[in-house]
Amino acid sequence: MNEPLFTTDALRAIFSPSARLSRMLEFEAALAQVEANVGVIPKHAGDVIERHCDVSRFEVDAIEKAAQDAGNLAIPLVAALTRDVAQEDAEAGGFVHYGATSQDAIDTGLMLQLRDALVVIEADLARLSTALAGLARKHATTSIAGRTWLMHAAPTTLGVKLAAIVSALDRDRDRIASAAEHALVLQFGGAVGTLASLGDKGIAVAEALGARLGLRVPDMPWHTERDRICEIAAALGVMTATLGKLARDLALLAQSEVGEAAEPSAPGRGGSSTMPQKRNPVGASIALAASIRVPGLVATMLHAAVQEHERGLGNWPAEWETMPQIAMLAGGALRAMAAVAEGLDVDKARMAANLDITHGLIFAEAVQMALAPTLGRDAAHTLVASACRRAVEKRVHLRDILEREATIGRVLDRKALDRLFDPANYIGESRAFIERALAHHR
Amino acid sequence: MNEPLFTTDALRAIFSPSARLSRMLEFEAALAQVEANVGVIPKHAGDVIERHCDVSRFEVDAIEKAAQDAGNLAIPLVAALTRDVAQEDAEAGGFVHYGATSQDAIDTGLMLQLRDALVVIEADLARLSTALAGLARKHATTSIAGRTWLMHAAPTTLGVKLAAIVSALDRDRDRIASAAEHALVLQFGGAVGTLASLGDKGIAVAEALGARLGLRVPDMPWHTERDRICEIAAALGVMTATLGKLARDLALLAQSEVGEAAEPSAPGRGGSSTMPQKRNPVGASIALAASIRVPGLVATMLHAAVQEHERGLGNWPAEWETMPQIAMLAGGALRAMAAVAEGLDVDKARMAANLDITHGLIFAEAVQMALAPTLGRDAAHTLVASACRRAVEKRVHLRDILEREATIGRVLDRKALDRLFDPANYIGESRAFIERALAHHR
Amino acid sequence: MNEPLFTTDALRAIFSPSARLSRMLEFEAALAQVEANVGVIPKHAGDVIERHCDVSRFEVDAIEKAAQDAGNLAIPLVAALTRDVAQEDAEAGGFVHYGATSQDAIDTGLMLQLRDALVVIEADLARLSTALAGLARKHATTSIAGRTWLMHAAPTTLGVKLAAIVSALDRDRDRIASAAEHALVLQFGGAVGTLASLGDKGIAVAEALGARLGLRVPDMPWHTERDRICEIAAALGVMTATLGKLARDLALLAQSEVGEAAEPSAPGRGGSSTMPQKRNPVGASIALAASIRVPGLVATMLHAAVQEHERGLGNWPAEWETMPQIAMLAGGALRAMAAVAEGLDVDKARMAANLDITHGLIFAEAVQMALAPTLGRDAAHTLVASACRRAVEKRVHLRDILEREATIGRVLDRKALDRLFDPANYIGESRAFIERALAHHR
Amino acid sequence: MNEPLFTTDALRAIFSPSARLSRMLEFEAALAQVEANVGVIPKHAGDVIERHCDVSRFEVDAIEKAAQDAGNLAIPLVAALTRDVAQEDAEAGGFVHYGATSQDAIDTGLMLQLRDALVVIEADLARLSTALAGLARKHATTSIAGRTWLMHAAPTTLGVKLAAIVSALDRDRDRIASAAEHALVLQFGGAVGTLASLGDKGIAVAEALGARLGLRVPDMPWHTERDRICEIAAALGVMTATLGKLARDLALLAQSEVGEAAEPSAPGRGGSSTMPQKRNPVGASIALAASIRVPGLVATMLHAAVQEHERGLGNWPAEWETMPQIAMLAGGALRAMAAVAEGLDVDKARMAANLDITHGLIFAEAVQMALAPTLGRDAAHTLVASACRRAVEKRVHLRDILEREATIGRVLDRKALDRLFDPANYIGESRAFIERALAHHR
Repeated sequence: MNEPLFTTDALRAIFSPSARLSRMLEFEAALAQVEANVGVIPKHAGDVIERHCDVSRFEVDAIEKAAQDAGNLAIPLVAALTRDVAQEDAEAGGFVHYGATSQDAIDTGLMLQLRDALVVIEADLARLSTALAGLARKHATTSIAGRTWLMHAAPTTLGVKLAAIVSALDRDRDRIASAAEHALVLQFGGAVGTLASLGDKGIAVAEALGARLGLRVPDMPWHTERDRICEIAAALGVMTATLGKLARDLALLAQSEVGEAAEPSAPGRGGSSTMPQKRNPVGASIALAASIRVPGLVATMLHAAVQEHERGLGNWPAEWETMPQIAMLAGGALRAMAAVAEGLDVDKARMAANLDITHGLIFAEAVQMALAPTLGRDAAHTLVASACRRAVEKRVHLRDILEREATIGRVLDRKALDRLFDPANYIGESRAFIERALAHHR
Repeated sequence: MNEPLFTTDALRAIFSPSARLSRMLEFEAALAQVEANVGVIPKHAGDVIERHCDVSRFEVDAIEKAAQDAGNLAIPLVAALTRDVAQEDAEAGGFVHYGATSQDAIDTGLMLQLRDALVVIEADLARLSTALAGLARKHATTSIAGRTWLMHAAPTTLGVKLAAIVSALDRDRDRIASAAEHALVLQFGGAVGTLASLGDKGIAVAEALGARLGLRVPDMPWHTERDRICEIAAALGVMTATLGKLARDLALLAQSEVGEAAEPSAPGRGGSSTMPQKRNPVGASIALAASIRVPGLVATMLHAAVQEHERGLGNWPAEWETMPQIAMLAGGALRAMAAVAEGLDVDKARMAANLDITHGLIFAEAVQMALAPTLGRDAAHTLVASACRRAVEKRVHLRDILEREATIGRVLDRKALDRLFDPANYIGESRAFIERALAHHR
Repeated sequence: MNEPLFTTDALRAIFSPSARLSRMLEFEAALAQVEANVGVIPKHAGDVIERHCDVSRFEVDAIEKAAQDAGNLAIPLVAALTRDVAQEDAEAGGFVHYGATSQDAIDTGLMLQLRDALVVIEADLARLSTALAGLARKHATTSIAGRTWLMHAAPTTLGVKLAAIVSALDRDRDRIASAAEHALVLQFGGAVGTLASLGDKGIAVAEALGARLGLRVPDMPWHTERDRICEIAAALGVMTATLGKLARDLALLAQSEVGEAAEPSAPGRGGSSTMPQKRNPVGASIALAASIRVPGLVATMLHAAVQEHERGLGNWPAEWETMPQIAMLAGGALRAMAAVAEGLDVDKARMAANLDITHGLIFAEAVQMALAPTLGRDAAHTLVASACRRAVEKRVHLRDILEREATIGRVLDRKALDRLFDPANYIGESRAFIERALAHHR
Repeated sequence: MNEPLFTTDALRAIFSPSARLSRMLEFEAALAQVEANVGVIPKHAGDVIERHCDVSRFEVDAIEKAAQDAGNLAIPLVAALTRDVAQEDAEAGGFVHYGATSQDAIDTGLMLQLRDALVVIEADLARLSTALAGLARKHATTSIAGRTWLMHAAPTTLGVKLAAIVSALDRDRDRIASAAEHALVLQFGGAVGTLASLGDKGIAVAEALGARLGLRVPDMPWHTERDRICEIAAALGVMTATLGKLARDLALLAQSEVGEAAEPSAPGRGGSSTMPQKRNPVGASIALAASIRVPGLVATMLHAAVQEHERGLGNWPAEWETMPQIAMLAGGALRAMAAVAEGLDVDKARMAANLDITHGLIFAEAVQMALAPTLGRDAAHTLVASACRRAVEKRVHLRDILEREATIGRVLDRKALDRLFDPANYIGESRAFIERALAHHR
C-alpha cells in the first residue's frame, strides 16, 4: 500500500522491503564490528559478518514470508545471515546478532530509515516555504476577499494569507527538527533491555555502536517506551494538517466560480478521463488525501505505544507499517504542494472582481468601524446590519443604501465612503504581519 | 505496506497492484461488450476492446507512476488501453471507456476486489467459529477462573468463555454478509452521475453491466455517497475487535504465570532471536496488531465519506489504500486466529490449579450468595468481605476462616461449604448459555 | 462536554447524569420485582425496593464523586440504594441488586438510554429525508452545475443531487433500525456472566427482566463482547458522514461566489460578532463539526471493544462517555440539517447563471459525446479538449470556437449545437434516478 | 461528558461552562482596558466594561443555549455584555469587544484555560515521576521476571522497569513545557486576521493585550493555523500513552496469578458490587480508559486543523469540546497514576517466587550466552533450546537437564551454573541505566 500516487520515489525507496532489511543488516554489521573491536566476539568475525550484511545476498520475499511464523522480520533475517556467514566461516556464524534482540535490529533499522526520510522531508519543507514566502512577499498588497464560514467577510491580502501558512510551516520545520534530535536514537538493550548478555561490556558496545551508526545513545533502551517515535509521528501529523489547510484553501480558490488561483498545468496533469475541459487540482487532492489519512495513523501510533512489560504484544508490530506510512504520506503531500506553490497561477484581476461580488457587503465592517468611534460599535453594528439587509433585499450596492442614510451622512462624507470601499484601505497590520512572519526567510 | 506478516496470500493477491488494474479492465471489457450489445458502440468494438482488457498487456508500474500527474489510476489505464486497442482497430479505440468516468472503473473494480475478499473472509470466519464451537462444546464443563479487572472473580467454564466469542463471531458473520448484500453494487454514473453521455440508454447499459459483472445495480450512482463502503469497513472493523478480544484473552491465558492455554507450536513458529526457551503467541500478536490498526482506518473511511458535490477532492482518494488495508488486516487477523483455535493447547490441570491460587477467595461470591437468602445480600457481603480480608492478612485459606465463623456455621455446614468450594457447583446457567449460543453450530 | 450547541435538548436530557442513574435504578427496580415474582427474594422486597428506585432520592453529584474510588457508578449507587431501602425495611435492604453485577446495571441502563435516543434520531432522520425528498422532487429538473474536484464538470440537476442523499439517508435509517433490533438487548450475567448467583433461576429471571424492561434477552450475557454496541456506534457514525456530506455541499453552494443556496435566516441566527452583513451557515457548521468528531469516537469504541476475560480493564469504562457522545453529536447534526433542509433557500436563477460562468466549458463533454459516435470517443476528446484550451486562452465562449471548427461543423449543425449548450438536454437518467431513489418516499 | 471519574476536580473547574465564559470575559475586560489606554476607545469605557466582565452577572445556561443559533458562545456573550454595560453607561456599551472577532475571545479564553490546566498537569507529572523515581531507586536490585510477548523472557529488575518509565515521563514533561512555551499565545486578529478594525493601532493593542493577559504575542494571528494547539494536544496524547503503559504493566503485575504489585487499598476503593474479595486496580482502569480515548481525540484535533480561509467551517468548532477533553482525560489519568505510584504495594517475595515459575527456563538466555563465547551464539542457542524443550516435556527444572548434558559440562561447572541460575547475576547494565535515567531526579 505505498503506491506512487501518494508519496515520492525517494520515500518509497527508503521504506521499500529491501531497504528495510538493508538497514537491519547495517545494524548487524555495525554490531559485529563494534563487538569485535571491544573484544566481545572474535576479532575476525566482525569483518566476515559485515561482508555478508549485504541485502542483495538475501531473498527479501522469502524472509518476509518466514516472518509469518516467526512473528517479526529479524528472526528469519538473522537466521539467514547466520547460515550465510557460517558457510564461509563456521565460527563467525556463531557470533551473528551477538547479545542483541530482534527489536534492537528492527527499531534501529527504522531509526536509520526515518533519519533519511526526515532529510528528504526537511528539504521539501524548505522548498515549499521558500516558494510560499516568495509569493507572500510578491502579493503583500494584493487584495483578496477574506472569507469566514466560507463566506465573504472583509478584505485581506493574498500576502497575509500565505504568510500565515509560511509561519505555520516554519514551526512545523522546528517541530520536526526537534523531534529528530530527540527521537532518532539507537535502540540496543538485548532480550529485556538490560544488555545482560554482554556482561559488563553492554554500555561500551552501545556507545561504539551509536557512534558507528551516527545515532545518539539514549539513557537506556526504550523497547516499550515509544514516546520518541510518537513525537516524530505527531510532528509529521501536524505538518500534514498544515499542508491540508493550504491545499483546501487553494482548491477553494480554484473553484470555477472563484477562479483566483490554479495549480500549474502540464501535459497529462489534472485532466479527466471523460471531460475534455478539466484542469483538476491534483496536487491539492494528494495533500488532502494525506490530511485525511494521517490523523488516524497518528492515533494508531499512540494506541500502539501502550506496550506491555519488556516487549509489546501486537502493539509494537502495529507500528511497523504505520510509521513508514505516516512519513510517506506526509512527504508525498509536501512534495505535491511544493510543486503547486512553485507553479501557482494567481489571478489578481479575478481577486479584485470577486471583491465586488457581494455588492459592497464585504466592506460592511469597514463602514461600521468608521462609524463606531462616533456612534459606538453596537449602534454602528445595528445600523450597518440594517443597511446590508436592505441592500440584499433591493439588490443594490451597499454604498447606494449608505449614501441615502442621514445618520451616516453626518459621520462619513462621500470621500470617506470612497476610501472605505477600497479594499486596499482596510488591511490593517497586514504588511507588518507579513514582515514579522517572513523574518526567517530573508 | 501490505507485507505478508499481517495478511494472507489470498488477500495480497486480490489487492495487488496488478489485480487492481485487472479488475478495472474487467469493468472496461464488460462495459464495451454491453454497449456493443445495446448498440451504443459499434458491434465489433466490444470484442476488440475485451480482447485487450488483459492486465498482462500493460506495464503496471508505469501506469501507477503516471497516476501521479493524472490524479488517479483510471486515466492512464484508459489512455493505455485506448492506444493498445487503436493499434489493432482505430475505430474500436475510439469507443473505449465510452460514457464512463474514472470513478466508475475504480469503484466497480474495488467492489469486485472486495467481493472476492469477503468470500475469503467468510470462509475463514466459518473456520474459526467452527473450531471455537468445537472447543466450547468440548470444554463445556471445564472449570476456569472468571476474571474481572484482570483479577480472579468467580469460577466460570472455558466453554462459556468461548461460546460468548462464537456468538460474537456469528453476529460478525451476519453483519458482513448483510454489508456485502447491501454494499457490493455496481458503480456507473458517468461524469457527474447522470449517465448523460449515454443519452437514453444509460439505465439499459447499467442493468446489463451489473448483470455481466454479477453486481447489483443500485437505485442510482453513488459517486459521493460512501455509506455502503463504510458499512463494509465498519463490519470488518467490528469483527477485528472481536478477534482482538479473543487474541488478548488467549495471550493472557498463555502468560508464564497462568499457563492455561498455548498457541500451537511448530518448527520456526514463535521462537525468539535470542531466547532459546521462547514460544511466543505469534497468532495473537497478529490479531492484536490488526485490532490496533483497523479502528483508525475505519475512522479514516468515515472522514473520507464527506465528499464534495459530484466527486470528492482528496477524500475519495483517501479510500483507495485504506479500504483494501482494512480487508487485508481483518483477514490476516482472522486467519491467524483460525490457526490458533484449530491447534490450541488447553491445560485443564493448570486451570484447576489456578482456581486455588487465591486460597479460596474466588469462591467468596458463592459463599455470599449462599448466605444471602438468610442474611440478606448486603449483610452477607459485609461478612464475607471481612472474612476475605482476614484470609489475606493471615495468609490462610478462606475456608479456614469461614469454618471458624459462628454466624456462618449457623447457615452453612461443612458439607454445604464443601459444595461451595467446588467450582463445578457455581457455574449457573453456563450449560444453557453454551447451548443457546452454539445453536447455529449444530 | 455536552454543550447545547452540538446536540439537542432531548438527547441532553436522555444522557444527563441524573437520567443515567435513573435508568440504572430502573434496572434495579425491575430486577427486584422480577426476583420477588420468581421467588428469588422475599415477596415484599420487590415493592419496597422499587419504591426507592427514584433518582430524586439520591445526590447525583455525590454518587459521581464516589465513583472515583469505586471505579464505576453502580457501586456507590447500589450502596446508597441499599442504605435507603434498609432504612425503611432492613430485610428488603439485603436484597437490593440481588445476583447482579455492576455491569448489568450500567450496560442495561445504557441500552435503555440508547433506545430512547434512537427513537429521537429516527424521528429526525425521517423529518430530514422527507424535507430533502420534497426538495428533490420539486427541483427534479432544476439545472445546476455538476462539480467534480470542486470544478465545474457537466450539468446535472438539483433533484438528482438531493435524491442521492435521500437514498443514503434511507440506508442510514435501515442501518440504524437494524442495529437497534440486533443491539438493544438486556445485559444480565452476574459477576462473571454465568448467573451462578441465582442458582437455577438465572434464565427465568433474565427472561422476566427483559420482558419487564422491553429489551430482548440475548443468547447469553455479553459483558466483554461489545460488537452490538459497536454496531450502533458505527451506524450512527456512517449517518453522521452522510450529514457531513450534505452540510459540506450546502455550505459550498452558499459561498458568496456561488450563492445557489442559503440556510434559513432568522433573528439571531448566523450573525457575526463583528461583521454586520454575515449570514453564516450555522447548521452546516454543527453537522460538519460532528462529522469531524464522530469518526474518532467510533474508532474509540472499536478499540474499547478488545475487553479482557469477563470484564474489561479500562476499555469498558472508555465506552461510558464515548457512546453517549456519539449519539448526542449524531443527533445534533441531524437536527441541525433537518432545520436547514426544511427552510433551505434555493436560488434557481443563480444556478442557471453559474452554469455559464465557464463560458460553455461545462458543455464540453456533451459536445464530445455528440461527436463520439461519428469520430470515436478518443478523437472527439482530443478535438474538444483543444477547443476548450483555445476558448480559455482567447477568453471566448466555447461555442464560438466550435462553430468555427470545420470538423465539428460536419457533424453538428447550429441547431444541434443549440441543443448541446442547453443544460436541460444533458441530464441523462436524472429523472429516472430520482424516481427510483425516492420510491420509498411516496 | 466530564464526569468526575475520569478527571480531577481542578481540571473540571478550569473547563467548566462558567469558567469558560469567565476566561472569555477576562479577554474582553483586558481588551477594553488596553484600548482605553491606547486611546482606541473612550478612557472611562475601559473601567466600566471591565467591571461588568464578571461571570456571575450572566446566565451561563441561557448563553450556551443562544449559541445554538449564533454558532458560537462569543456572539451571545458579547451581546449580553453589551446590554449589561449599556444599562450602566450607554456610551461604554458601544465599545465592548471593540475591533475583535468571536474567535479572538474564544481562542484566547481557551489559551488561558489551557495555561492553568498545564500547571496542574505539570505538578502532577512531577509528583508521579518523583514517586516512581523513588521506587526505581529503592528497587534498583529487586529481581523480577522480564517479560516479552507477555511471557517470561529473562530476569530484569523492578528498578530498571520503573526507571524507563521515569525517563519517558521526563521527556513528556519537556515536551509539554515546550508545547506550552510555543503554543500558549494570544489570539487577536479581528474579523479576518488583519486587525483592520483598529486602523494603525492593531499591533500596539495586541502587544498591550498580550502583556496584560500574560500571553506571548505571536508574529501574526493564527485563526486558521492550528498547529500550536495541535502540538499541545499531541504532547498530552503522548503522555497519556506513557501513563497507559505504566497502568497496563501494573495491572498485569496485579493479576491474581502474578501478584507482584497492588494498588493502594482504602475503604471504598476498588471493591465490587457483588464480589466481597475484590481489590480492583481502579487507578490503572482510569489511566487505561484515557489511553484508549485520547488518541482518537488527538486525531480529531489534526482533522479539525484543516481550516478554511480566514475561519474554519465546522472544523474550528470541532476543537471546542475536544481540546478540553484531552486535557481533562490526560490530567485524570495522571492523577490516578500518581496516587497509585505513591501507594504502590510491591511484593518482592512474589517477584522472587515467580522467577522460578518456569522451572529455570527464564535463565535459558543466560546459559546460552555463557556458552556462546565457546560454542558460538548459534550452536549455544540450538543446544539450550533443545534442553528447554526436554525440560518442558519431562516437567523438570532446566538445570537438571543441563547438568546431565556433557557438552555443557565441559564449558560450565556446577558453580558456574549456580551463578547463572541466580537472577541477580544477569541484569547487565541495569544499575547504570537507572543512574543515567534518574540523573534529573537527584
